[in-house]
Amino acid sequence: MNTKVVLEYDGTGFSGWQQQHGRRTVEAELKRALRELSGRDHKVYAAGRTDAGAHAFGQVVSFDFAGRITVKRLPAALNAVLPADVSVVAAEPAPPGFHARYSARWRRYRYRYLDRTARPAIGRGQCWHVGRPLEEKLMAEAAGALVGRHDWTSFCSASEPETSRVREMRSAQVSRHGSLVDLELIAEGFLRGLARGIAGALAEVGLGRKPPAWVGEILESRDRSLAPKTAPARGLALMEVYY
Amino acid sequence: MNTKVVLEYDGTGFSGWQQQHGRRTVEAELKRALRELSGRDHKVYAAGRTDAGAHAFGQVVSFDFAGRITVKRLPAALNAVLPADVSVVAAEPAPPGFHARYSARWRRYRYRYLDRTARPAIGRGQCWHVGRPLEEKLMAEAAGALVGRHDWTSFCSASEPETSRVREMRSAQVSRHGSLVDLELIAEGFLRGLARGIAGALAEVGLGRKPPAWVGEILESRDRSLAPKTAPARGLALMEVYY
Repeated sequence: MNTKVVLEYDGTGFSGWQQQHGRRTVEAELKRALRELSGRDHKVYAAGRTDAGAHAFGQVVSFDFAGRITVKRLPAALNAVLPADVSVVAAEPAPPGFHARYSARWRRYRYRYLDRTARPAIGRGQCWHVGRPLEEKLMAEAAGALVGRHDWTSFCSASEPETSRVREMRSAQVSRHGSLVDLELIAEGFLRGLARGIAGALAEVGLGRKPPAWVGEILESRDRSLAPKTAPARGLALMEVYY
Repeated sequence: MNTKVVLEYDGTGFSGWQQQHGRRTVEAELKRALRELSGRDHKVYAAGRTDAGAHAFGQVVSFDFAGRITVKRLPAALNAVLPADVSVVAAEPAPPGFHARYSARWRRYRYRYLDRTARPAIGRGQCWHVGRPLEEKLMAEAAGALVGRHDWTSFCSASEPETSRVREMRSAQVSRHGSLVDLELIAEGFLRGLARGIAGALAEVGLGRKPPAWVGEILESRDRSLAPKTAPARGLALMEVYY
């Protein structure tokens, strides 16, 4: 039966979502757990293929479940065999055509910066310790230029096909909570490297190295060589997927 | 020179604050770091002697610093030699009579519950996974009985001297943030086991096993045998100390 599950994971100990030979990945752990429950191999599809070190509070995964456990009992059954850094927080039956990746309409990612001088001790794998004050109002101003339908060549990975780098960004907001500064992005799709590319550029603005208008200029230039280095994966988390 | 520092630490890997032979403690790590910077041994005094597994965002420690580093540079110097799960977030000169423990007027602790069914993956050492719905409004009602000057015999450890179990609780508040329920307590002092004893009792109320008035009744009884088991240390964090 086609099934949709929501996963939370701490990406610190994983080489990302996608299965790779000889690496510890979330996909491989989930497939192993499904095999353990059902005795069968499963193909699984995730809404976002998160990078090594990046986290998820609301990753959505679909698969045609081959076991006899009811969907209601599936989270507890999976959590009993999954490692401590992955948890199934919800499961429900999905219509036959449902595909976690292709059916998704919007994805929400959060990028978290820590701007106090002292390094973090609690949650130290969950933020980018910038270590100098960020001007979050300037970052919010710069983020305004990202909203809308754009060609993301300047910010995404060069490995993305040139002919399909256009996506709609619905919202890009910056907020401060003490020493934490959060960037929240909602887009129909996130090309490889996009969220971290944007986070790296906004850090330049927040640190006062570039004016807010510079982010929009880079975006329009479609020239990756003008963009600064990407922000580290540990600050990134897939929060929610909308269908 | 008498010095006051503020520490953040992830208590997961520590046998608490207080130095104990053969155990990894925050006090021992700080003393080792001070020796490394100055070549001298230090006596250090902490506002709260947190339990094994309990955390701190705002532990305050005082010591007579014997090194040559200026107080301004002390956080960066200490953080360079402290392990990743402890961080000095601030340092300032303190008046000669200042003592982190005896000069403290109020301490604020937070106890964090997670009440969704699925276990946590991110921040799993930072909350008590109760796993069933907590009625936070009933918990808040019960917490009201804690405010004021009380004899805490019912909730503190039996190892506390019977003659000095009276302390003032200034505030006891419960709030929900998604699946997290936070209990915030501000008191002049926390006897050993007190915060976790209270957190355990409020969980009974939140789970519907006891009515809100029961917490005040236990408190008045001064009978530890009536109190439920204490809540696990990993949900507890020392947030702030007021002087």
